[in-house]
Amino acid sequence: MENIEFNPVRSFIFVDCPQEKNRHKLQHWMYYHHVPESMAKFGPFVTKYTYYWALPVPDDGERFGGRNFCLTEHYWLVNPNDSRTMVNALSEYFPPEAMVWQGHLPDRPETYEKSMFNGDDARATEGNEEDDTIPFVYIFMPFWWEEDLKGASRTLEDGYNYRWLFTFKYPDGVSLEQGDKWFFDEMMPTFCNMPQTTRILTSRVKSELNDSPYQRVVEIWFEDNEKWLEAVTEGVKNMKKPEWATVDSFPFLKPQKEIVSLFLSDLPGDDHYSQYHGYQPRR
Amino acid sequence: MENIEFNPVRSFIFVDCPQEKNRHKLQHWMYYHHVPESMAKFGPFVTKYTYYWALPVPDDGERFGGRNFCLTEHYWLVNPNDSRTMVNALSEYFPPEAMVWQGHLPDRPETYEKSMFNGDDARATEGNEEDDTIPFVYIFMPFWWEEDLKGASRTLEDGYNYRWLFTFKYPDGVSLEQGDKWFFDEMMPTFCNMPQTTRILTSRVKSELNDSPYQRVVEIWFEDNEKWLEAVTEGVKNMKKPEWATVDSFPFLKPQKEIVSLFLSDLPGDDHYSQYHGYQPRR
Amino acid sequence: MENIEFNPVRSFIFVDCPQEKNRHKLQHWMYYHHVPESMAKFGPFVTKYTYYWALPVPDDGERFGGRNFCLTEHYWLVNPNDSRTMVNALSEYFPPEAMVWQGHLPDRPETYEKSMFNGDDARATEGNEEDDTIPFVYIFMPFWWEEDLKGASRTLEDGYNYRWLFTFKYPDGVSLEQGDKWFFDEMMPTFCNMPQTTRILTSRVKSELNDSPYQRVVEIWFEDNEKWLEAVTEGVKNMKKPEWATVDSFPFLKPQKEIVSLFLSDLPGDDHYSQYHGYQPRR
Amino acid sequence: MENIEFNPVRSFIFVDCPQEKNRHKLQHWMYYHHVPESMAKFGPFVTKYTYYWALPVPDDGERFGGRNFCLTEHYWLVNPNDSRTMVNALSEYFPPEAMVWQGHLPDRPETYEKSMFNGDDARATEGNEEDDTIPFVYIFMPFWWEEDLKGASRTLEDGYNYRWLFTFKYPDGVSLEQGDKWFFDEMMPTFCNMPQTTRILTSRVKSELNDSPYQRVVEIWFEDNEKWLEAVTEGVKNMKKPEWATVDSFPFLKPQKEIVSLFLSDLPGDDHYSQYHGYQPRR
Amino acid sequence: MENIEFNPVRSFIFVDCPQEKNRHKLQHWMYYHHVPESMAKFGPFVTKYTYYWALPVPDDGERFGGRNFCLTEHYWLVNPNDSRTMVNALSEYFPPEAMVWQGHLPDRPETYEKSMFNGDDARATEGNEEDDTIPFVYIFMPFWWEEDLKGASRTLEDGYNYRWLFTFKYPDGVSLEQGDKWFFDEMMPTFCNMPQTTRILTSRVKSELNDSPYQRVVEIWFEDNEKWLEAVTEGVKNMKKPEWATVDSFPFLKPQKEIVSLFLSDLPGDDHYSQYHGYQPRR
Amino acid sequence: MENIEFNPVRSFIFVDCPQEKNRHKLQHWMYYHHVPESMAKFGPFVTKYTYYWALPVPDDGERFGGRNFCLTEHYWLVNPNDSRTMVNALSEYFPPEAMVWQGHLPDRPETYEKSMFNGDDARATEGNEEDDTIPFVYIFMPFWWEEDLKGASRTLEDGYNYRWLFTFKYPDGVSLEQGDKWFFDEMMPTFCNMPQTTRILTSRVKSELNDSPYQRVVEIWFEDNEKWLEAVTEGVKNMKKPEWATVDSFPFLKPQKEIVSLFLSDLPGDDHYSQYHGYQPRR
Repeated sequence: MENIEFNPVRSFIFVDCPQEKNRHKLQHWMYYHHVPESMAKFGPFVTKYTYYWALPVPDDGERFGGRNFCLTEHYWLVNPNDSRTMVNALSEYFPPEAMVWQGHLPDRPETYEKSMFNGDDARATEGNEEDDTIPFVYIFMPFWWEEDLKGASRTLEDGYNYRWLFTFKYPDGVSLEQGDKWFFDEMMPTFCNMPQTTRILTSRVKSELNDSPYQRVVEIWFEDNEKWLEAVTEGVKNMKKPEWATVDSFPFLKPQKEIVSLFLSDLPGDDHYSQYHGYQPRR
Repeated sequence: MENIEFNPVRSFIFVDCPQEKNRHKLQHWMYYHHVPESMAKFGPFVTKYTYYWALPVPDDGERFGGRNFCLTEHYWLVNPNDSRTMVNALSEYFPPEAMVWQGHLPDRPETYEKSMFNGDDARATEGNEEDDTIPFVYIFMPFWWEEDLKGASRTLEDGYNYRWLFTFKYPDGVSLEQGDKWFFDEMMPTFCNMPQTTRILTSRVKSELNDSPYQRVVEIWFEDNEKWLEAVTEGVKNMKKPEWATVDSFPFLKPQKEIVSLFLSDLPGDDHYSQYHGYQPRR
Repeated sequence: MENIEFNPVRSFIFVDCPQEKNRHKLQHWMYYHHVPESMAKFGPFVTKYTYYWALPVPDDGERFGGRNFCLTEHYWLVNPNDSRTMVNALSEYFPPEAMVWQGHLPDRPETYEKSMFNGDDARATEGNEEDDTIPFVYIFMPFWWEEDLKGASRTLEDGYNYRWLFTFKYPDGVSLEQGDKWFFDEMMPTFCNMPQTTRILTSRVKSELNDSPYQRVVEIWFEDNEKWLEAVTEGVKNMKKPEWATVDSFPFLKPQKEIVSLFLSDLPGDDHYSQYHGYQPRR
Repeated sequence: MENIEFNPVRSFIFVDCPQEKNRHKLQHWMYYHHVPESMAKFGPFVTKYTYYWALPVPDDGERFGGRNFCLTEHYWLVNPNDSRTMVNALSEYFPPEAMVWQGHLPDRPETYEKSMFNGDDARATEGNEEDDTIPFVYIFMPFWWEEDLKGASRTLEDGYNYRWLFTFKYPDGVSLEQGDKWFFDEMMPTFCNMPQTTRILTSRVKSELNDSPYQRVVEIWFEDNEKWLEAVTEGVKNMKKPEWATVDSFPFLKPQKEIVSLFLSDLPGDDHYSQYHGYQPRR
Repeated sequence: MENIEFNPVRSFIFVDCPQEKNRHKLQHWMYYHHVPESMAKFGPFVTKYTYYWALPVPDDGERFGGRNFCLTEHYWLVNPNDSRTMVNALSEYFPPEAMVWQGHLPDRPETYEKSMFNGDDARATEGNEEDDTIPFVYIFMPFWWEEDLKGASRTLEDGYNYRWLFTFKYPDGVSLEQGDKWFFDEMMPTFCNMPQTTRILTSRVKSELNDSPYQRVVEIWFEDNEKWLEAVTEGVKNMKKPEWATVDSFPFLKPQKEIVSLFLSDLPGDDHYSQYHGYQPRR
Repeated sequence: MENIEFNPVRSFIFVDCPQEKNRHKLQHWMYYHHVPESMAKFGPFVTKYTYYWALPVPDDGERFGGRNFCLTEHYWLVNPNDSRTMVNALSEYFPPEAMVWQGHLPDRPETYEKSMFNGDDARATEGNEEDDTIPFVYIFMPFWWEEDLKGASRTLEDGYNYRWLFTFKYPDGVSLEQGDKWFFDEMMPTFCNMPQTTRILTSRVKSELNDSPYQRVVEIWFEDNEKWLEAVTEGVKNMKKPEWATVDSFPFLKPQKEIVSLFLSDLPGDDHYSQYHGYQPRR
């Protein structure tokens, strides 16, 4: 068997916790079980593994598929979906409740197998409307951002950054090229020309790695959430609606299904390799 | 000059961020400036310095003076308010905006000195209603909880913990003894007997250390925020109202002025001594 | 309530694992559950918390109450047995099995309560012969060794150190003074004059802190276990037997009950504060 | 000169300490000298470097080439045996005694050069019967286990793991294919069907990397050493003996020469990158 | 024996390396041997242990007893000179050469005992003119600066800090009170009024702790070394010379014997507890 | 776009601080701003990032382009000059003053743009004689040294190492092959045969990666700076001068332009990944 090839990729997981009553339970599972188990599993080939706490979803953020828990970021030296990486000494502990808390399974135990999920099952949950569940959004992208559309010289000394991170897929039947034409010719110029935006970056999602439906990931920065709201309401007033819109107004995409967002700050995340030291609750 | 005496104390700061537009700015100041400066200042005599992220204030939480940012915890080997500890090589960087973001100064720059605050000024802000500002709540207490009223044998294996932490002062003119009589004879038995509570702890605030008006600190645990809400509405129905109540219904105290709350999980906080490694934002 | 006084003390726990079939289970409990829970409980007033792996008990070591698992060491700033330190937010998870694995409870579940122990119960187990169980040995001593009897100038460059650490109590009815007379006038001179010993240190056990029956702790160093065996057999041939001996030959004390030993190297232990980073098993 | 290619590999060293009188000396060399020197040498291209303490060799374990000191594990990004990696600023300190303590050189100084070994000499020691020395066993394997034969869904919550790790070579003259036929058709089905086994994994040794004679590495898990003993005695009763057996009973291979074993727990090893902080012996 | 009392003190050692040919040798001894041994010795009762690299001694700095190696800082919870702290399991490795490199012993091996020094011998070296050796300067002072004479509100945002740290003793026969009169009435006002100084702090040396001859420690900050030079030449022109001056011009004290200086920046030092991870030289 | 290829390379930056009045300012910029920003930028693909403090430039060191601040070392998994790595979320904060302090821009603000530099501008500064500025020297080389010319078996136990690290380019118009002929046939044999040298290593600079003019990097070790001085004066007396010499005596190259040196010890550098914990100045 040929050895695996070098294929540095970055991944993002957009984590939600739709019901506040579960937030502390999800925290417990992630920090008590999942973080150390994950490091044990992929430590030697992941160079950074970090959780970034989500800022609360701002007003109007639901239309953009806003999620409220965290961004999980990994940097992989190889494609972790390659079949040669599949055998692990220990499987991750993945109780179905952890999927309920994230909104991927309905909060009705009778609807899922009592038996333990494994991580792969969990990461394949797609959500559906009847159950009011949302898809597990796990995207791969290049190690470095591909396109730098605005604000390349911005440093930490240049002000506060309210970072709107989102990924999306064009509606079914719209090709990446077709969709990107609108994205680069219409949507991006609109945002680049707005006074409210300070920085714009985008990459194509490497959806071929894990058969993700998502196609593009974007980050647009603002001074704060008020500037964000102006931008996505006033600022887009003259933006041409794409013919393939599934929703009438910007972003023209169905929340949670076609577009998913996180609102983040510059706060360094919990960089588990250098910081994790066990689950030590307050006395 | 006699050397300072051993006086181990724990302190809590209840940090709020009343306007969401400022949350990321407050994060920046705390993690970029304040954490490393604080460790440089008190590292050799503080044995633990941790921030715990607040869970969102639950429904009805405003009546309890719910705050939404974090709990700051220190463990001191000596009383940091002692005059012998006052000379520091470097003063903390404390721009007035950091006080605005926490709700202690009004969001109108014309009302405060442009010049830098120092930490002591900041920590003395009391808030007032006209300005819609709230007091800086910084309380000292024993290193160990004083009273164990329910659930002493609870371990991490016994379920999830939704921890309601609050401090309060009895209304002006009510002595600690007078107030505590109601607290221990009426309020605590009510909570101890509720099925919703799993753990109850309380200590007297060592208000003599920094002239804090607050008198008592309490922690009551529940399975989740729904159980909390039941407890503080249904559960207290038959609780006798104290004669000195300044508010008609439980907790019988004015939010933010007489009672201040945080809602916390068991999630280990950001233990700065073992975890801080500079301000490294996401790429 | 007066604040607690400064009382720096060091403690040792002599941990055994009498049945090899349980060693990995005991490791799991200690590193998965006990270490992070302990740090959460006493972190702010314990300045060092370390486990040192025991070398295998050498030939003839059973006569000296040799234990084979580890030495647990704490440095406390205050007496942890003081009543003012007794209220903890979370209780340690202490299943009775963990006591079975250490030899403190018989390996017959029907003999102990199914309910969870707490740490204090566990630390009070005394062992008895019918059950073939041994006492929990937890001793307090001064922060610094009290008596330096041989080898004060020894540095790390002076050779290998095979460290025999033991604690003992004189037989019932023998006072510390009476016993110490023999210890200092007969036993210590014998060991100091032996060519096999390189370093000798001893302190009185602060048995008043936790009502421990043990009275003295000693450390004697050798180049290796062969030198140790020579010393405790050939080397003591002319040592005068104390009148109170409960056993005919040196050490004249009943193993596990009156004398307990660990054999240790200079290997730095697992210093949990600086090293613990969760339970991450090998892939 | 072409730059070196990406070739992620994992390696195991099976470390023994045949004479207990040397265990603390070997510990000293490994932790005082070898760990920091190794990290200085290969830090930038080894992503994890860990020692796992061996459980004592169980009864009957000698027949399986049981070793009693530790497993050394590295994860390499490139093949460290490539000629382009051979020039190091500093050579490792490798006194011949360190090889004596591991059983690779006879304990008779007159038989080896007084001059220092270097690491490559050391790692090439093969052992021989007259001297009662054993080979240095250093094997390379894929980063991920290749074959998952039993228990793929096992998580840390599913019970204790007594992990029997072994590597072996088929007797001289037996090809890998010939040997593997028996291994996969006879030996593995026997173990997979045993009630005592909970997990079985195996990979081919990448013996081409360092000309190691060993051909296969296997890990089989049990609840404890009693289950292991049942398995390798009762459990293999009906296993067909291979025609090429050099020993009459299972494992049909010569201990230490053809098969070498370690008995390990899930205890996280000493992960030197995140944990090493110098050689600080107990006070 | 009464337990030791709480007595938090800070200490400074002013380390010099008079001959550049020895700088790397001194670094080796300090980082290879001394740092880990020191932490092993006093870790549980020293809350911070840091080396700060000296800036090069500026022009004219020799007149002020400028030293060029580093400042060693400890924060002690108890007085380490107390007789109850004197027994250590291991003695520090202190070869006389390490004292030669620091200028405390003459660079002539025939003048000192070949045998190893211990730390206490080393720390008592006083230097003498014939040998061109200088005293070991080890001073204790309060945990917090005592007197804040200028610039109390200075923060890290207020500019660069060139920190002149010095300790001194008044000439023999001059009492502290007599000397301090000049210091506070003449010298300090001169420096406080200079435009070149940004910050002035001073404490009395707790010379009673270790019989140090030094009496006062001072820190004066400047923007850079040019401002420092202006200050100590131009700036002091009108300063009244004390009657007890042993040297004609400011600082009126004999360099190295009566006054010793270090020139330091704000650069965080090597904080050994959180940073030391062994001696790992560049590849 | 094809994913980036594995291309492990090491880089060195030779950092100078020509005016001592700026040393603390350069330290501030590097440790307050540059280290955390750099780690945030390249953390996931740089496996080690370290600063090594320069020993003072020895007598006669100026002729060799001696620099006095530090060596910056990175180990990269990919070529950081590849166009696919150019988009960064945040740009490094690179004020022109930081280049003045390193001698790359003249100390006359009127000569440079007030606007911020970016890192790439900074790293392209070449220096010129009129301004008395020196080039930014940033070289790439193989992960491992290429040629081992003397002392391959040297270990840390074999004595002190005074390490002369230098890079150079042959004069314009001299090809690498032409220059290397003299280097390997004349210069290297001279140094290899000297009693003063203990270790010699060299690699070709991978100047194609960043269009660096430098061609070769060499490290020669001595016991101390006196041995170095002997070597580069007495020791080279009979060395044949190359026909292309631009300077009359050894090293026959123009300092700072054609040859640049650092003098280093074995002192482990500031390994930022494992050691950086924010900017915490001395109290």
